[in-house]
Amino acid sequence: MKPYAQMTKDELTHELKKLRAEYHHHQNMDIHLDMSRGKPSQEQLDLSMGMMDVLNSEVDLFCEDGTDCRNYGVLSGIHEVRVLIGDMMENAPDNIIIYGNSSLNVMYDTVARAYSHGIMGNTPWCKLDRVKFLCPVPGYDRHFAITEYFGIEMIPIPMSPTGPDMDMVEKFVSEDPAIKGIWCVPKYANPTGYSYSDETVRRFARLKPAAHDFRIFWDNAYGVHHLYDVKQDYLIEILAECKRCGHPDMVYKFASTSKITFPGSGIAALATSPNNREDILDQLKHQTIGHDKVNQLRHVRFFGDIHGMVEHMKKHADIIRPKFETVDQTLTEEIGELELGSWTKPLGGYFISFDSLPGCAKAIVDKALKAGLILTSAGATWPYGKDPLDSNIRIAPTYPPLEDLKKAMKLFSLCVKIVSAEKLLSEMK
Amino acid sequence: MKPYAQMTKDELTHELKKLRAEYHHHQNMDIHLDMSRGKPSQEQLDLSMGMMDVLNSEVDLFCEDGTDCRNYGVLSGIHEVRVLIGDMMENAPDNIIIYGNSSLNVMYDTVARAYSHGIMGNTPWCKLDRVKFLCPVPGYDRHFAITEYFGIEMIPIPMSPTGPDMDMVEKFVSEDPAIKGIWCVPKYANPTGYSYSDETVRRFARLKPAAHDFRIFWDNAYGVHHLYDVKQDYLIEILAECKRCGHPDMVYKFASTSKITFPGSGIAALATSPNNREDILDQLKHQTIGHDKVNQLRHVRFFGDIHGMVEHMKKHADIIRPKFETVDQTLTEEIGELELGSWTKPLGGYFISFDSLPGCAKAIVDKALKAGLILTSAGATWPYGKDPLDSNIRIAPTYPPLEDLKKAMKLFSLCVKIVSAEKLLSEMK
Repeated sequence: MKPYAQMTKDELTHELKKLRAEYHHHQNMDIHLDMSRGKPSQEQLDLSMGMMDVLNSEVDLFCEDGTDCRNYGVLSGIHEVRVLIGDMMENAPDNIIIYGNSSLNVMYDTVARAYSHGIMGNTPWCKLDRVKFLCPVPGYDRHFAITEYFGIEMIPIPMSPTGPDMDMVEKFVSEDPAIKGIWCVPKYANPTGYSYSDETVRRFARLKPAAHDFRIFWDNAYGVHHLYDVKQDYLIEILAECKRCGHPDMVYKFASTSKITFPGSGIAALATSPNNREDILDQLKHQTIGHDKVNQLRHVRFFGDIHGMVEHMKKHADIIRPKFETVDQTLTEEIGELELGSWTKPLGGYFISFDSLPGCAKAIVDKALKAGLILTSAGATWPYGKDPLDSNIRIAPTYPPLEDLKKAMKLFSLCVKIVSAEKLLSEMK
Repeated sequence: MKPYAQMTKDELTHELKKLRAEYHHHQNMDIHLDMSRGKPSQEQLDLSMGMMDVLNSEVDLFCEDGTDCRNYGVLSGIHEVRVLIGDMMENAPDNIIIYGNSSLNVMYDTVARAYSHGIMGNTPWCKLDRVKFLCPVPGYDRHFAITEYFGIEMIPIPMSPTGPDMDMVEKFVSEDPAIKGIWCVPKYANPTGYSYSDETVRRFARLKPAAHDFRIFWDNAYGVHHLYDVKQDYLIEILAECKRCGHPDMVYKFASTSKITFPGSGIAALATSPNNREDILDQLKHQTIGHDKVNQLRHVRFFGDIHGMVEHMKKHADIIRPKFETVDQTLTEEIGELELGSWTKPLGGYFISFDSLPGCAKAIVDKALKAGLILTSAGATWPYGKDPLDSNIRIAPTYPPLEDLKKAMKLFSLCVKIVSAEKLLSEMK
């Protein structure tokens, strides 16, 4: 079939009629599919059920150094879990702080601390007239929600397959002391799946911020979340690169095991320089006596070491790789020749980013919803929920079973076709 | 033996010589005892080892409503744990928010939220020139550390066996709009072990605050932590009483299972009015997708219901009751007739409060430390660590084994005697 834009009005009207009939058919199928969030499927969760067996009343709950994990204390996390998560994050155990179950919580608390108390002796952000963050777009809605909640002005920075537009980043960061941070998902980014190129990371480490308390919020959420065994993206380690460039304190790096073991019951962590770490622990000691060490121990006993975790991630990949491939295949089959949008083909992570014709994203998501398919809200990938082109849609393929996903992507493609055809027709009038 | 204050200078000098010899003997015994914090003993922790068995790879990890506890979501906690913790806190499940492993963290976050965003539409505290808290003394050092960290001015309010001086509380709260809160440990208080009388609770519920955003920070940390089965303190439920008095939004109530199951791996909770709860969840949704539901399920499956928890607490009581009695007994034997101090005799909780002769507390704690016994720092029970009389010492009897505790309390008594004798002698000169 030829691209819709090359069709005559009659051809397109005829096509639209067919599509609408097909859509009605779908509406009658009583579909209930949720692809709104990047959630692991039940099959993936089952991979970690063994973690429920490693601790029981017959085994001791003591660390290697003799600490009783059941009792209070150990603010930065037990040593063996800092080794494991350090290997995962490619940082030394001494650079790591282990938190509770949510890296989002760590990021929120990091912004909240800067807001109420400032970073390393700098003025608390709540005492400043203006605080701004750079936000590569499309990006992660929950990042943007945190900065919006704290009244931080967000400036969108376009993403490309090599990362954010570094010319813009360098200009903003070096010229405006109100720019205090940038949200980054540097590997298999949410939602594009892009990974920052070596040049991008090197330019990040070489930033010369106008603000002393500028920090890169480096959310390496998908560091070990590859789809393939050899065909993998690789990221230059940012803390090391910053240290080499004489800016050791410029990065807060976040990660968790939420999409490795259980999303509700994993372990979150922050890696940063000794100065930042001391600054953070000085606050953290007022907030808690320590996080859940039994769960830390459970993770260590389950994985053994980083090799165990890598092998575990291959099992995740075996489950979700076909899903990513199904999305690409279905989109290619259904709309590939019609020139109604483009989408990314990541080697890892949890998302595929779809760009429709301008002005169609909201309508596509609405149309899908009315047929029983819940997608991430259009606009969610932009600060303030406002996508200026109304074109970006985040596709989250992991949660539904493969068969449901196929149906969902067919329905999605149908919605793309209908909304695009309507738009093209309206422009012909 | 007669009271030291009634001794002649010669008698007291002679006594002090004997005491010092005894102290040297202790110093040579290579003692290492830590009574600095209210930590459960290993024997107590062993009571909850069964909790490590209730979840394993053979059982399902689904809630009664079908929610998969392993995955993301359920911001306020799973229903069955809100029932269990609701029964523990004497509040309806719908009034409860379940958090992570630390009620201290919940309290910190509650202050932090008021500081950055304000309470229910009121001005954020960070935008005010002055914010003050009332602090019943002696009290809990970590409470005071939070308010100090946020630059909140702390006003000490004397405690009596019936609770804080309510005349003072009423006057401050009704007259000064800068008073935004009061820290309360209403039952088996830290460190006195006192429980608020019915009249005290009723007067709390009848407060007429000058500030719209005044809140009672009701840390009911020891609600079910009785030492005896029938001889128990009872506390009027504060949320219900406030509601009856037309002030439903005046209280944030905190609790946790830290001293019920495992201090590092329990469940913390907040109970409050529907308005407050909505206000809090509006913030919390930016901070996390949800807390650890697997651990919530683990607690529910372990206890079954509140009766299971109450039976469990009896086992704790059987372990710590003899420790509380040993402290009282040793102090009575060693210094009872000497009039060198007074101490409380709680029916529950984790602490005994000791008041030495004025000006002796710091020296007693120092002397104990030099012989190998670590106590809570003198002054810790006061805001800013400043006990104006230098007389209060918090005794935490739960952590050491009973035999060690006996030794520790003998050593403590010896230090009290030496420091008191030195003081009395110096006053004779």
